[in-house]
Amino acid sequence: MSEDTHESVSHGMQPEDTPELRALYQGFADQSLIPLWTQLGDLMPMTPAPKAVPHVWRWGDLLPLAEAAGTLVPVGRGGERRAIGLANPGLAPNAYISPTLWCAIQYLGPRETAPEHRHSQNAFRFVVEGEGVWTVVDGDPVRMSRGDLLLTPGWRFHGHHNDRDAPMAWIDGLDIPFTQQMDVGFFEFGSERVTDYATPNYSRGERLWANPGLRPLSGLKDTVSSPLAAFRWEHTDRALTEQLLLEDEGQPATVEQGHAAVRYVNPTTGGDVMPTIRCEFHRLREGCETPTRREVGSTVFQVFDGRGAVVMDGVTYRLEKGDLFTVPSWVPWALQAESQFDLFRFSDAPIMERLHFARTHVDGT
Amino acid sequence: MSEDTHESVSHGMQPEDTPELRALYQGFADQSLIPLWTQLGDLMPMTPAPKAVPHVWRWGDLLPLAEAAGTLVPVGRGGERRAIGLANPGLAPNAYISPTLWCAIQYLGPRETAPEHRHSQNAFRFVVEGEGVWTVVDGDPVRMSRGDLLLTPGWRFHGHHNDRDAPMAWIDGLDIPFTQQMDVGFFEFGSERVTDYATPNYSRGERLWANPGLRPLSGLKDTVSSPLAAFRWEHTDRALTEQLLLEDEGQPATVEQGHAAVRYVNPTTGGDVMPTIRCEFHRLREGCETPTRREVGSTVFQVFDGRGAVVMDGVTYRLEKGDLFTVPSWVPWALQAESQFDLFRFSDAPIMERLHFARTHVDGT
Amino acid sequence: MSEDTHESVSHGMQPEDTPELRALYQGFADQSLIPLWTQLGDLMPMTPAPKAVPHVWRWGDLLPLAEAAGTLVPVGRGGERRAIGLANPGLAPNAYISPTLWCAIQYLGPRETAPEHRHSQNAFRFVVEGEGVWTVVDGDPVRMSRGDLLLTPGWRFHGHHNDRDAPMAWIDGLDIPFTQQMDVGFFEFGSERVTDYATPNYSRGERLWANPGLRPLSGLKDTVSSPLAAFRWEHTDRALTEQLLLEDEGQPATVEQGHAAVRYVNPTTGGDVMPTIRCEFHRLREGCETPTRREVGSTVFQVFDGRGAVVMDGVTYRLEKGDLFTVPSWVPWALQAESQFDLFRFSDAPIMERLHFARTHVDGT
Amino acid sequence: MSEDTHESVSHGMQPEDTPELRALYQGFADQSLIPLWTQLGDLMPMTPAPKAVPHVWRWGDLLPLAEAAGTLVPVGRGGERRAIGLANPGLAPNAYISPTLWCAIQYLGPRETAPEHRHSQNAFRFVVEGEGVWTVVDGDPVRMSRGDLLLTPGWRFHGHHNDRDAPMAWIDGLDIPFTQQMDVGFFEFGSERVTDYATPNYSRGERLWANPGLRPLSGLKDTVSSPLAAFRWEHTDRALTEQLLLEDEGQPATVEQGHAAVRYVNPTTGGDVMPTIRCEFHRLREGCETPTRREVGSTVFQVFDGRGAVVMDGVTYRLEKGDLFTVPSWVPWALQAESQFDLFRFSDAPIMERLHFARTHVDGT
Repeated sequence: MSEDTHESVSHGMQPEDTPELRALYQGFADQSLIPLWTQLGDLMPMTPAPKAVPHVWRWGDLLPLAEAAGTLVPVGRGGERRAIGLANPGLAPNAYISPTLWCAIQYLGPRETAPEHRHSQNAFRFVVEGEGVWTVVDGDPVRMSRGDLLLTPGWRFHGHHNDRDAPMAWIDGLDIPFTQQMDVGFFEFGSERVTDYATPNYSRGERLWANPGLRPLSGLKDTVSSPLAAFRWEHTDRALTEQLLLEDEGQPATVEQGHAAVRYVNPTTGGDVMPTIRCEFHRLREGCETPTRREVGSTVFQVFDGRGAVVMDGVTYRLEKGDLFTVPSWVPWALQAESQFDLFRFSDAPIMERLHFARTHVDGT
Repeated sequence: MSEDTHESVSHGMQPEDTPELRALYQGFADQSLIPLWTQLGDLMPMTPAPKAVPHVWRWGDLLPLAEAAGTLVPVGRGGERRAIGLANPGLAPNAYISPTLWCAIQYLGPRETAPEHRHSQNAFRFVVEGEGVWTVVDGDPVRMSRGDLLLTPGWRFHGHHNDRDAPMAWIDGLDIPFTQQMDVGFFEFGSERVTDYATPNYSRGERLWANPGLRPLSGLKDTVSSPLAAFRWEHTDRALTEQLLLEDEGQPATVEQGHAAVRYVNPTTGGDVMPTIRCEFHRLREGCETPTRREVGSTVFQVFDGRGAVVMDGVTYRLEKGDLFTVPSWVPWALQAESQFDLFRFSDAPIMERLHFARTHVDGT
Repeated sequence: MSEDTHESVSHGMQPEDTPELRALYQGFADQSLIPLWTQLGDLMPMTPAPKAVPHVWRWGDLLPLAEAAGTLVPVGRGGERRAIGLANPGLAPNAYISPTLWCAIQYLGPRETAPEHRHSQNAFRFVVEGEGVWTVVDGDPVRMSRGDLLLTPGWRFHGHHNDRDAPMAWIDGLDIPFTQQMDVGFFEFGSERVTDYATPNYSRGERLWANPGLRPLSGLKDTVSSPLAAFRWEHTDRALTEQLLLEDEGQPATVEQGHAAVRYVNPTTGGDVMPTIRCEFHRLREGCETPTRREVGSTVFQVFDGRGAVVMDGVTYRLEKGDLFTVPSWVPWALQAESQFDLFRFSDAPIMERLHFARTHVDGT
Repeated sequence: MSEDTHESVSHGMQPEDTPELRALYQGFADQSLIPLWTQLGDLMPMTPAPKAVPHVWRWGDLLPLAEAAGTLVPVGRGGERRAIGLANPGLAPNAYISPTLWCAIQYLGPRETAPEHRHSQNAFRFVVEGEGVWTVVDGDPVRMSRGDLLLTPGWRFHGHHNDRDAPMAWIDGLDIPFTQQMDVGFFEFGSERVTDYATPNYSRGERLWANPGLRPLSGLKDTVSSPLAAFRWEHTDRALTEQLLLEDEGQPATVEQGHAAVRYVNPTTGGDVMPTIRCEFHRLREGCETPTRREVGSTVFQVFDGRGAVVMDGVTYRLEKGDLFTVPSWVPWALQAESQFDLFRFSDAPIMERLHFARTHVDGT
């Protein structure tokens, strides 16, 4: 395949415009028909031609707006969440960061509660800074702290409450655009409050499942989504640190030189944490530059720590802590680290892989 | 879950309209942000709320238009196919029959050739009447005759040629809407003609794979899509006939009383023929009425033989040979047979099942 | 790995024989202990060191003995079957053809019935000549004719009855040695007769499942063993014929030049027909000689038609119709065809593959 | 199925002893044939009829004998290991603890090295007391300490060295009886010493893989056996402690009241650590008595801590730290705890499950 061509399928063979053709086209319209030959290039491009565009959102812009919303917008039944979606400019007027993914900054004021509900959509939260909120998932209170990934897989009741006198903000990721376009979503209200205001350090799910290589005999049935719903920064940081140390020792451990990475997985299968969303954490050594990649499917990154840049479609965007960016399908991208550079990543890769549309191209390979 | 409620998530808690709020909303707009609370009901409805609508297309309307197109519209490189898409009125201006599926009537005049190409999109053809065309899939000529299902799984070169002095029309099904919205499609031109004009009764794929319960030792690696690319009417008819005879003998064989059905499958796995599209054939005895079903995902039926009706969302549509209809996600539907009633069916069920969004509700169960 | 060495692990480091050592060994014996160092070479050889030996049984010897047994030995409850096991000389006094497999000639006189029972052991029958017997499997009468493979997967009731005035003999294959050594077998008596004396040409299982690429909607749940329990000669012969014709046409279809082969599979999965036994049919063109192979696991062949030879461990055995031979684990073997040469084959390969002990070596690769 | 019957299939229908029958039987013998009807009851019992018997070995007996062997028997190339196998009295003269499993006490003197080799057999070590030995698996040194489970999956080079001035003993478990009877084993010598005498606290495998819910991107390919080869007591103990605490809090976490348990798993799949051997750890609260179970397949337990008893086939055996016992297939067993009672367990359950012979019966269910 000539992967570098963006040319469209040509429309060179359009039939001659005659009264008979116009009558035919009117007949099509009357019968809810549209001929392929008038729109093939849009329907079936030579390579993916996303409407979504590469885009960067700055934490320095997002956080003040979220704080202002905290003053002006109540949280409660109806609106459900004080969440502000990152809307890809190419997908307006939809609040989609990509054709499959939704990403928002959510803000909870001191002592506030976001009421319980459940939905088919798969969701997670990632905490770039702060602490003090517990998300209660099917009755299990889960602490949210800096660097943690917290899951709310489809159809589990969940609400959040802030146990502190300070506000907290974090990132939500969901598969809302996919579920909305595919007509698969159900929604149900739960308690007006959360069902358990306890504030344990570790959720029951972690106490059962966060023991490496150990599976409770009470949990032998594989689950669609991970029963471990909290992935703590202490573990992620240690895993990445060890990969780089092993690399120093000459051992195979990193993705490529200077680039450590982990995927968050469902311990019952070793596969992705949820059926539609992949979550990963990447750490680059200072000075590391990744090769340029293209991937089918869309992805979102948030800078967790350090400074660096992303190059998307040949344009370089400098990045700092909290900044978010999205890479649409088949757009070439590469990362550059000015310091040790930590990034959380999520994507729709499980959709692409399960439906066998996944392709990756790495420059120089 | 309260499955019969269609109410939307209420927007009762919208914040008071103040200058400060307007400034906040302007700030959102400036930063490519959209708050969840202004659009939750659309993004996350209580049950699937498809824009697609139930709709019926009449073979008696389609065929004359296709014949007229045969006179007025050339087939060849560029437009590629003389295919006329069934456009769901709820999804205008897109030529989608559902959010995932594309369905068209394709027409090939006497001795015409549709040139070879390949694409990521998965495709099939189903023949409701006629014969004389061979579709050549990766060099293997496949006869197309009444009642046959012919596959063109993703990324296989294919073209068609009409070996006769009479035209032929058939139905194409593809996952174009899914691939277009998800940005996963690649396309490549092949030969201007087909690479093999032979007209064998059986394709090489059938000769290797259409032996029940027998797998060639040269084909032990499982494949994503079925290596058997032609499913002949003689087998389908016999399978359905035997199911009804077994039912007469008091044996469990049918889906429900008077309702025989087969799924077309990949013989290397026993699963669906392609990763995104399910194909089935259903036969109802005269007088049989199925219970009302709701399913997540969308489906299309074509009447192959007999007379009957479909009830969608409470509206009854009478059906004759060749008529096509689509049922959007979660719309209740039931079939009624006035004579022995044969229907070909395809759907996006593999997407729903592989991503764990599938749900079915059958009235009275 | 040096695959051609058969040397044993040496016992060169045995400790000096002293009174203290004898006391120690007596202590071991008193406590039901056996030291590894006195028997390592037997327990863990350099390559598989089967006690089973390559062996050929002649149909011309077997059939007269089975006929004599037909006169002298009743069939009925208790003995259950007039089956005469092929006992590998290296495994005496056990009636095992290999460490995992049991193979017998079974003989049923005119109008006789072998009563129903069921057991954990997986079983099949293969018919090298004759007709007139029906095996009734969980109530479904299955015709047995020349060239057919008939399954009786574990824990299904089954009996046989001869509907004719002539006797019939066939081959049984089971995993009795495996189940006996692993202590996994259960057994239960059923009817003293068969539960259905009907003599249909096709079993209900075939009517539901022997439609290529078509799966009944009433059978969507995958099954451990094949729901299709009869594999007819007409299909096997056609599949092999087509493979050789395709080879003549220059298409990839055969295992290797002149060697066509099919595996019998479970249509719900595309995998082996039963969890412990693989069944295949091989056809060699006249003059074809296969390369020499070694495989982990044991196998049995029966000549169905034609003349040829097998070379096992360097010894050539000429073969005619009905002759059976077994190849123990890792013994080199090759086939030579003097005419078109048809062979039925079964083996324990599913055990080896599912437990990840499978290895194959083909000379010259 | 009548699970409580042990009666054998009767031999009531043996044919009359006549000269003709004797001639027939001689004919069978001459042709390496054995009739089924003379041995059906042994080949296919009503329920599993293991030759293996329930048996207990006392740590207080084993350890002194191992210590004596340490004086009298060298360790090195040839004998390979100073390992003393627990030989089931019912399986004499084989050193098998069950038809599938081998279990030994291995003893390494101060500063000794057991040389490297590899074999198809899957192996593990469990440490009931002591420390100071490192096992080096494919070049990765793995510390062995009390309560740890260490894996040596098939075909990985491994040797052990004692870094201390004190001896150390531990338990080895392997699938030697299975591999020996099935003729699947290969063996290869490696270094006369271990390839790395480093003594790190944590192996490289642990540094990469012992991070709960995190999978290195450099390890995305699933592996047959666990890439995590050391399971530390600190994690096992914490997992069991948390299960009992959760039970105290009214949460579902234990197998049954007062009985906590974990299975050691392969983090790439969530399944068993090796294809043939399951490893688990069980903790009973003081006073807990499990219901009586029967299981197809054989198992071995070692008491890690506490006091209690096992009842096998109605006989009660009191148990103390280090004691080992085996339960043959389908023998009823139950545990009783006199104090908090910790037991390591291993079994051949993966064989039974992968080949679909698994059955379990729990009294009162």
